[in-house]
Amino acid sequence: MPPALPWTVRLEGDRVILIDQTVLPTELRFVECRDVECVARAIETMVVRGAPAIGATAAFGLALAAIHSNADNSADLLRELRLAAERLRKTRPTAVNLFWAIDRVMAAAESAAESGSVDAVREEVVREAQSIAQEDVDANMAIGRHGAELIEDGMTIMTICNAGTLATVWYGTVTAPIYTAWEQGKRFSVIALETRPVLQGARLTAYELHAAGIPVTLIVDGAAAHTIREKDVDLVFVGADRILADGTVYNKIGTYGLALAARAHGIPFFSVAPTSTFDLKSTRFDVKIEERSPEEVTHVRGVRIAPEGVNVFNPAFDMTPPELLTGIITERGILYQPLRMSIARALGSQ
Amino acid sequence: MPPALPWTVRLEGDRVILIDQTVLPTELRFVECRDVECVARAIETMVVRGAPAIGATAAFGLALAAIHSNADNSADLLRELRLAAERLRKTRPTAVNLFWAIDRVMAAAESAAESGSVDAVREEVVREAQSIAQEDVDANMAIGRHGAELIEDGMTIMTICNAGTLATVWYGTVTAPIYTAWEQGKRFSVIALETRPVLQGARLTAYELHAAGIPVTLIVDGAAAHTIREKDVDLVFVGADRILADGTVYNKIGTYGLALAARAHGIPFFSVAPTSTFDLKSTRFDVKIEERSPEEVTHVRGVRIAPEGVNVFNPAFDMTPPELLTGIITERGILYQPLRMSIARALGSQ
Repeated sequence: MPPALPWTVRLEGDRVILIDQTVLPTELRFVECRDVECVARAIETMVVRGAPAIGATAAFGLALAAIHSNADNSADLLRELRLAAERLRKTRPTAVNLFWAIDRVMAAAESAAESGSVDAVREEVVREAQSIAQEDVDANMAIGRHGAELIEDGMTIMTICNAGTLATVWYGTVTAPIYTAWEQGKRFSVIALETRPVLQGARLTAYELHAAGIPVTLIVDGAAAHTIREKDVDLVFVGADRILADGTVYNKIGTYGLALAARAHGIPFFSVAPTSTFDLKSTRFDVKIEERSPEEVTHVRGVRIAPEGVNVFNPAFDMTPPELLTGIITERGILYQPLRMSIARALGSQ
Repeated sequence: MPPALPWTVRLEGDRVILIDQTVLPTELRFVECRDVECVARAIETMVVRGAPAIGATAAFGLALAAIHSNADNSADLLRELRLAAERLRKTRPTAVNLFWAIDRVMAAAESAAESGSVDAVREEVVREAQSIAQEDVDANMAIGRHGAELIEDGMTIMTICNAGTLATVWYGTVTAPIYTAWEQGKRFSVIALETRPVLQGARLTAYELHAAGIPVTLIVDGAAAHTIREKDVDLVFVGADRILADGTVYNKIGTYGLALAARAHGIPFFSVAPTSTFDLKSTRFDVKIEERSPEEVTHVRGVRIAPEGVNVFNPAFDMTPPELLTGIITERGILYQPLRMSIARALGSQ
């Protein structure tokens, strides 16, 4: 059973069309953007979220800048694209796919500008953005084939946040093995952590799996360790916003605690991510963990749940050290320990 | 600085007056009960929650039954009290203080009925309920004196749920060392986990500490492990709904995961509870963990956050094994490992 939803982000003519994830699960609504600022704000306000979806969205943002530009020479168009790229880079500092996608489109633009016309640059930017989106879907399908081998009939799989079709262009990363295994006829169930503060597990993962007819049970984040112990969880799958050369995983806040709970109970713990999520250059000292607005914690969907004036610490991500991972499921196969070695081997051939 | 709030539950004439904790932190409102059914419903709907407060509330419920009874002989009054006790026992199955308080009032009633008049029984029931409430406050003050010795200037203390003045008749268990140390002039800060699904950390702990002028920072439950690592947490204090003879602690869902995170970082982890919370007779096989309504997870303060029709697993408590505890702070002192031995020593003299 494939996802019951259309592409999370797509380019249609001169518009970018996004599923508005801020109003799920009560409404399936779309946002249309015609300029970079609209796309940047959609990323900042989490209309679109999830590392791969953010990357493709930023690429489509550059495509919009190219499509709507009045520049009559490629140098002027490049200048406009650089400004657009600068704006997009400021939206979400932890998502490495964002920088990766922007850099890739900009490299394509610079290369086309060396010898080509303004129209050639424009076409190249659009083509590169479309490629990024299509490659994301292709990578997810490959992730699905590799990861599905881990899933057996009767298993219970736990996941946090949404690394589903809604976190990618389509098909998802964590959900790819789930959709593929289900299509293969395997029958199993999923436990979704609700994932405060933004509740992507409750609002998105529970929504898309339920829509696809896959049994899903929702728990609060604090119930993870207890549920692992009491409900015979077999596998934990988490996404990744960035993975370092040694296998350190940056992912949604709560992932690290979940990894500790899985380890305490000897449950296999996999990060599921395309190789575009890997950042082989940075170390832990370079990675800045985004802190988001206190209102995400003090309010739930507009309703105040904490006293006025209270301090809030609201990190969007946490860091899981490689020793807590069983492996990483990528489109090139499953990377096992020692992760530094298998990552180097898998990505060296890039 | 003592708590800025009045008693959580008190008997005034022929009425029981409760702080309505379901509307905090936006409003400080009171519920008045004149009969047992009202008191039972207040416990079930979490107008009052927290093991010691539930115990005192149930005792006051029996006091109301005695005060409003038309029985003209002690046998009839006893029968009415037994019915009232039966109703109250059904409200929250995990809270051992509930059964302890009911048993204690009933024993006093039975004993008074052996030789006394109906009025003697009535007076004894009221006196015993008042004693339970006053002893709770006294125990908390003693817990505060013992526990405050662990707190030093500049420390950061993490806690889950609300084991504050609002969880007890007054002064709290986890908050007792905090209030006492603050009164002793020590200056430190507290990190409160919001504690989904019912958000007692956000709504109650953040509220009462903020009201008392003690610096408190709110985080989502999933941020606990990351925050322990990043914010130099020095101590973790949790309450308890039931503690077994070997030191096994049943407490709010999320406590077990927090204990695993504290252990992974070598942070002292204490349960703070009066000796009335100990259940020396039961084993883990006897303890039934209450599962509460799915709506607590799918809705936050009336707002839907999950898709319709999704399964929910909503255990109210979890079990933390004794090996994850540094010790237990009680009104008789701090009990350290090996816990089975120090619990036997402290409670043997009961």
